[in-house]
Amino acid sequence: MTDLVSLADIESAAGRLAGIAVRTPLVPFPQPPGSPSLLVKPESLQPVGAFKLRGAYAAISSLPEDVRARGVVTHSSGNHARAVAYTARAFGIRAVLVMPHTTPGVKVQACQALGAEVVHVEPTSEARVETAGRLAAAHGFTMIPPYDDARVIAGQGTVGLEIVQDLPDARDAADASGDAGAAGDANTDAGADAEAGGDAAPDAVVLVPVSGGGLISGVAAAVKALRPRARVIGVEPEFAADARDSLREGRPVSWAAEETGRTIADALRVQRVGDLPFAHMKAHVDAVVTVTEEEIRGTMRRLAREARLIAEPAGAVATAAVLHHRDELPEGAPYVAVLSGGNVDPALLQEVVR
Amino acid sequence: MTDLVSLADIESAAGRLAGIAVRTPLVPFPQPPGSPSLLVKPESLQPVGAFKLRGAYAAISSLPEDVRARGVVTHSSGNHARAVAYTARAFGIRAVLVMPHTTPGVKVQACQALGAEVVHVEPTSEARVETAGRLAAAHGFTMIPPYDDARVIAGQGTVGLEIVQDLPDARDAADASGDAGAAGDANTDAGADAEAGGDAAPDAVVLVPVSGGGLISGVAAAVKALRPRARVIGVEPEFAADARDSLREGRPVSWAAEETGRTIADALRVQRVGDLPFAHMKAHVDAVVTVTEEEIRGTMRRLAREARLIAEPAGAVATAAVLHHRDELPEGAPYVAVLSGGNVDPALLQEVVR
Repeated sequence: MTDLVSLADIESAAGRLAGIAVRTPLVPFPQPPGSPSLLVKPESLQPVGAFKLRGAYAAISSLPEDVRARGVVTHSSGNHARAVAYTARAFGIRAVLVMPHTTPGVKVQACQALGAEVVHVEPTSEARVETAGRLAAAHGFTMIPPYDDARVIAGQGTVGLEIVQDLPDARDAADASGDAGAAGDANTDAGADAEAGGDAAPDAVVLVPVSGGGLISGVAAAVKALRPRARVIGVEPEFAADARDSLREGRPVSWAAEETGRTIADALRVQRVGDLPFAHMKAHVDAVVTVTEEEIRGTMRRLAREARLIAEPAGAVATAAVLHHRDELPEGAPYVAVLSGGNVDPALLQEVVR
Repeated sequence: MTDLVSLADIESAAGRLAGIAVRTPLVPFPQPPGSPSLLVKPESLQPVGAFKLRGAYAAISSLPEDVRARGVVTHSSGNHARAVAYTARAFGIRAVLVMPHTTPGVKVQACQALGAEVVHVEPTSEARVETAGRLAAAHGFTMIPPYDDARVIAGQGTVGLEIVQDLPDARDAADASGDAGAAGDANTDAGADAEAGGDAAPDAVVLVPVSGGGLISGVAAAVKALRPRARVIGVEPEFAADARDSLREGRPVSWAAEETGRTIADALRVQRVGDLPFAHMKAHVDAVVTVTEEEIRGTMRRLAREARLIAEPAGAVATAAVLHHRDELPEGAPYVAVLSGGNVDPALLQEVVR
């Protein structure tokens, strides 16, 4: 079986990310009296507007200096590409981004403004992966995959570390963290974790958007290691529910691009979770719930108006699950919703705040 | 001379605010290559949408329990009233808010939804203060003033404490903090602070909106005690530059309501800084700069688009000063701009994100 990312891996990434990633707080979202509290973690406040900086920086900063100096390459058109470009600039190294030629110009320019080189290819995932691999081989670039990578997952896991640190009653959990870190492999016995979670009433429910699965993998690894009674729930658009199907069937299931393309949540259109993320999800994730397009838009509006947070559509799904699907979620306050990013088209933002 | 709020007062308030106020991060605002960095502290993420929670909670939590149990009263129609209502609900005590009958219904309802009682009066500051005083005397309520109060200033000062903790190279400053705290009155010798600041090149420039002056007083007291080389700059709308005039003339100067009423920054229409805030400003604040209405709107737009932060007009002025008035500011990165609040009318938000 594949080795899962451990708490020690995530703590090591957190050390490298200090002073680089913003230490985002848990922001209370107003709830009716008597309801469990809802806390939102706004990764929209990261320098590139999304949690992706954590994984990209964690991966690139973990490279031996001489390897890193040769540069990095990735295949992504979205927030991960921007995070790789940002990190490469911070280290003063080359970043080559392989993007479909259909990528909106504004996204391409944002990466180029950070000094990255963009290589355009046909809009198929095969073309992107193949081209990136060829460039890596020819120039000695290191490939920085968007999610199917232990270093990237460890970086995203720092979101989970911070959630546990900031949760009410986190003092006990923090002590446990020290012990687990010393033990070194506290997080590899997924069965025991799941059992611990299953036996006791949840003391927190953490909701995370699922696309390729890197974010939820890291978050779940950290949360389950430090706070075993917590539940970790994935959230997807109804129109891109491949992770839900994958957990049901016990193997990664693909959805067609025509299907996932229907959701407004462009960052969640990945058609299939990665293999390494899927292994983490099987071990640590308790369930996946889905939200509608209307719920996503309504939640973007409520996040702006009631919590003063700008979310891109993908960033709103976890909060939407709490606002609209409480009946499908485990009971046990507080709910923590990861707001994964805020890179929203201005026209859409204007529409939702109307 | 009036006693100024000390670092120890602010640290004591910070202890009581832990777990109540959101520990807001410093969010990088993208700057052109070669420019000093600009970090924004988004107090818009506080539960009531503004820094005011810090002062109101610090003041109310400092009351003896039997005094607090009798309830609190204040005269304010804005974010301070909402913060007092929020805090009173947290303690399960009565809050009576004296508001002009011209207060927009949505603001009144927000306070009532938190369980506060609202008493309407004529829209003059005399009527408000007189009525609040009478209610306090008749019912044993404690008056919680919006800014002219040492307990409130100490609470707002926790913004400054966090800025120093989070600034790059803050380790030395944090050590100094321990020493200063032990000394107890390290912050009362304002002359020495000013000299220390004057002699050395600034190692940070902290910009703070000025209305009644409570926020900048607390922030400056904390920052100058812990990081004496930093500069603290007040920011006002051109249309409400009473604090600038006050510093120039060496005494609090009033502007007419018809003048301050012209600015879109409704939270900065207070006509005169308070006496206790003015004493702090004279001791600790290096200068006041002003921004135009157009700069405020443009900065609201840029904060939303480039930093994914929602600011009310008053919340945007400090960032606007860095974006538009660098030539009037001391050199010495980084710039830190306090985004004081995000309670913006949805129609205005929609207009600025267009």
